[in-house]
Amino acid sequence: MEARSIHHLGVAVSDLDEALGTYTRLFGAELEHRATVPQQGVEAAAVLVGSGRVELLAPLGDDTPVGKFLTSRGPGMHHVAFEVADVHAALESLKREGAELVDAEPHPGLFGLEVAFIHPDSVHGVLAEVVSHG
Amino acid sequence: MEARSIHHLGVAVSDLDEALGTYTRLFGAELEHRATVPQQGVEAAAVLVGSGRVELLAPLGDDTPVGKFLTSRGPGMHHVAFEVADVHAALESLKREGAELVDAEPHPGLFGLEVAFIHPDSVHGVLAEVVSHG
Repeated sequence: MEARSIHHLGVAVSDLDEALGTYTRLFGAELEHRATVPQQGVEAAAVLVGSGRVELLAPLGDDTPVGKFLTSRGPGMHHVAFEVADVHAALESLKREGAELVDAEPHPGLFGLEVAFIHPDSVHGVLAEVVSHG
Repeated sequence: MEARSIHHLGVAVSDLDEALGTYTRLFGAELEHRATVPQQGVEAAAVLVGSGRVELLAPLGDDTPVGKFLTSRGPGMHHVAFEVADVHAALESLKREGAELVDAEPHPGLFGLEVAFIHPDSVHGVLAEVVSHG
């Protein structure tokens, strides 16, 4: 499987507006998308830093995946997403290579993407995501 | 200051060859540069994942910045580097915005880059780097 690019860097933050302000002020980031997604327990904002993309993730409660991450590790980098042509084909390829998957099947991600996560144990401690446009 | 792109994602690993194998096998990564840099206490490899770049960093000893990171946090994402037109001008802009800098002046980074780090306290827990071509 050949990934096309780094689609985004996912970053866990405690206050979305404050983080948006920081990325805008320090790096000239521009807001691309913003949404509250109760099913995933997050309020999220995708910002463009030039041609790069950072996904800022604020938890809707302590008992959400991002909330638990913040409690145990504090704010910071949460995952990296690699864009692929087809997340279904990518998952097949990853299974063949023996990667441990968090998601055996793709599911709807933020902002209309199809996504699946790979377990950090298979990527040297990095929570990696593959995404394609649905 | 407007960053141009995500130049790379820096990842701390304990075994560089093993990590290179993983990124190649799972994501079709291609080796761009590889170097041992005793002054920075690392053996590093930049790999291209499509148009994206991941910098894999293996420590040359426990008492190096990456070695200490591995001891305290384990392998995983270490920093994100934003490419800027001119790291000197970027640092002036960051100082004006009140960002806490790890490096008050740019210094030579890996692979011919000029780099400076921004303290995670100013970027919501993310160790951020600005880089430009020297």
